[in-house]
Amino acid sequence: MSTVSLSRLDREIEELAAISAHPAPAVTRVLFSAEDLRAREWLTARAKDAGFRVRKDPVGNLFVCWEGSEPCLPAVATGSHTDAIPNAGKYDGVVGVLGGLEAMRQLKEAGHVPKRGIELIMFTSEEPTRFGIGCLGSRLMAGTTSPEEAGALRDAEGRSLDELREAAGCRGNLGAVKLSTGAYRAFVELHIEQGPMLEEKQIDIGIVEKIAAPSAFRLLLKGAGGHAGAVLMRERQDAFMAAAEIALLVEKAALESGSSDTVGTVGVVEVRPGAINSIPCDVKLEVDFRDTDREARDRALARIGDGTHALCRRRGVKIEWQVLNQDPPALCDPGLVKMVEAKAVAAGFSTSRMVSRAYHDSLFMARVCPTAMIFIPCFKGYSHRPDEYSSPEAIAKGVEVLKECLKELSLQ
Amino acid sequence: MSTVSLSRLDREIEELAAISAHPAPAVTRVLFSAEDLRAREWLTARAKDAGFRVRKDPVGNLFVCWEGSEPCLPAVATGSHTDAIPNAGKYDGVVGVLGGLEAMRQLKEAGHVPKRGIELIMFTSEEPTRFGIGCLGSRLMAGTTSPEEAGALRDAEGRSLDELREAAGCRGNLGAVKLSTGAYRAFVELHIEQGPMLEEKQIDIGIVEKIAAPSAFRLLLKGAGGHAGAVLMRERQDAFMAAAEIALLVEKAALESGSSDTVGTVGVVEVRPGAINSIPCDVKLEVDFRDTDREARDRALARIGDGTHALCRRRGVKIEWQVLNQDPPALCDPGLVKMVEAKAVAAGFSTSRMVSRAYHDSLFMARVCPTAMIFIPCFKGYSHRPDEYSSPEAIAKGVEVLKECLKELSLQ
Repeated sequence: MSTVSLSRLDREIEELAAISAHPAPAVTRVLFSAEDLRAREWLTARAKDAGFRVRKDPVGNLFVCWEGSEPCLPAVATGSHTDAIPNAGKYDGVVGVLGGLEAMRQLKEAGHVPKRGIELIMFTSEEPTRFGIGCLGSRLMAGTTSPEEAGALRDAEGRSLDELREAAGCRGNLGAVKLSTGAYRAFVELHIEQGPMLEEKQIDIGIVEKIAAPSAFRLLLKGAGGHAGAVLMRERQDAFMAAAEIALLVEKAALESGSSDTVGTVGVVEVRPGAINSIPCDVKLEVDFRDTDREARDRALARIGDGTHALCRRRGVKIEWQVLNQDPPALCDPGLVKMVEAKAVAAGFSTSRMVSRAYHDSLFMARVCPTAMIFIPCFKGYSHRPDEYSSPEAIAKGVEVLKECLKELSLQ
Repeated sequence: MSTVSLSRLDREIEELAAISAHPAPAVTRVLFSAEDLRAREWLTARAKDAGFRVRKDPVGNLFVCWEGSEPCLPAVATGSHTDAIPNAGKYDGVVGVLGGLEAMRQLKEAGHVPKRGIELIMFTSEEPTRFGIGCLGSRLMAGTTSPEEAGALRDAEGRSLDELREAAGCRGNLGAVKLSTGAYRAFVELHIEQGPMLEEKQIDIGIVEKIAAPSAFRLLLKGAGGHAGAVLMRERQDAFMAAAEIALLVEKAALESGSSDTVGTVGVVEVRPGAINSIPCDVKLEVDFRDTDREARDRALARIGDGTHALCRRRGVKIEWQVLNQDPPALCDPGLVKMVEAKAVAAGFSTSRMVSRAYHDSLFMARVCPTAMIFIPCFKGYSHRPDEYSSPEAIAKGVEVLKECLKELSLQ
């Protein structure tokens, strides 16, 4: 059924997974770490081997370019990311990057001559690990994040984005990253579902119509420290007890939002001084909260805000609330959604239209050009963990649909 | 009133505070860190300057020895610790060590000739920072911790106590640390109160009758990770949400124990993978729980245990419960309590009998020999934080009482 050369793509997925700061099966590739830089070099080499040209922009977005016969026409693009949070898996993002490369190679090998150019984009820092903000590359491309905001970013060690990108050989003004509207004819991203639906219903291809509205915020809590044995309970301003209440409030607000898609996660928790016999005086929390229903999400966020301020007042704990992002949801382009569906059906694959609860670079590319996403099943919906898995067959079906879309779009 | 040479002791407190892994006003000296080793060298030099002999045992307890005219008699001892948790202050432990040295020097300068020897002990690792167990040196001296248990200790980097103590030049079998009962005639520890009572009531000298019963445990929680956007709330096994509930349960059990002295603290919280868009799969908590009333404490601990296991079952989170220590309270020796009181009154100081809610090396020394503690006021009861403070006058009064006790005991 599929014409994908499984062995080449599968081998490359394994090769890329081996470039990791943690041992297999974990994959860790944090933005501009040694591993991220090696992965970029490795991808560049694969793209050049296939006869494509590679360029990068000032924030490190990589573009693998196949020029069309009419170079003045906006190109059609695909892509995703290769950075990975600590102790993640092999497939998140990677399937879209290496699957996109494979689709382009197959078209080339089959003698396809594109009218418009075809470009594969490896986006910088889809994961928020280093700077606390996800989709940094695509945000800058869409102009959602300004060069000034990006220039002010600092990592946990106080290093700036400018310092790190320059050390990685990414030069030039961040303002040059922004794309003009219509810069691309279309953007189609292939991705694992990161949820259990497709696998449970045994569906080959998920066709995304809508991407959830994500929100992320950081809370800095300041209480009063002291000796764990000596300060009576009623005299305490324990920053971690406030944090614990906030976490349960996030959970409750998500459970009771009225929308079944609301999810809230407290993923980053740092407690100082961090000694067993010392009352926590400083806590940093980072919270991710999202929904496909923006109003339900924003109502829940307001509830968390009110509750958090009330409990911090009651506990005598000071709070600083930093909004990291609060983006509107994105709609996929109806024409592209139909095209993806038609290509999948033509190949004999089962399909389902769906929403993406995870967010992706597509959320931001949708502001620049017509955008669609192709989802494939993954084991139990697991993602961001070492046992994340999509079968070679599932990946091959996704690549097949992507390839056919790129082929048709490049001739329009 | 006081004959203490303030300037020498005050200068030494400042000098020792400058040996710190964090900049002033914070003091950080973790067991067998470079700073701990420098502090040990510095103290040894001060003791030798004063004409005392210094020896150390296999776990690194330091003994500053002033031989008596009848060397076969058990010596009288004083002492405390100089290790400090991250971002602590200058006085916790240090007042007992440098104040003890000062008391011995003053006696010597005044021509005192002790019958029994007088020894100052700098105990290894009163703070539990490195190995999660406090009073390591005095526990081994009292035989409360066996050499086998100590030999099995590993720090966060997996380094063993044996490896670290040998690198620090502390050789020999850990079994040799244990003291025989009656090894000392008496042990008297000078310490800041680490609570607000003495300052509030304007009392010069607190005379400790009882030391609170401490308990410490570590909880390892294992849930299921996953992408923060993709796993619905009802499908989660979020290890941090379980941890948040446990923390609030600890707080509630302490508040409702029926004893006003019960305190519970979750001082160590480590969350993995620690990314904003990833559901926490692993959490380590370290909890300190203590009371002067052992039964009230143990009832509260049972309540925490039951509640924790129930909520972990409900949440599908696995739990491993490690008891780090669960010690009985200690009573100070009634004869020594009376002696401390008499010396304070004779010097014209106001006094109050009290309990120690913080625990100390005295808790373990009390199993080996008659023991007493002298408390002095500290600013607002602050401890384990950079603004910990006791005035030179308050310290001088404590040293004066300690000196008179050592003098009388050394002649008995």
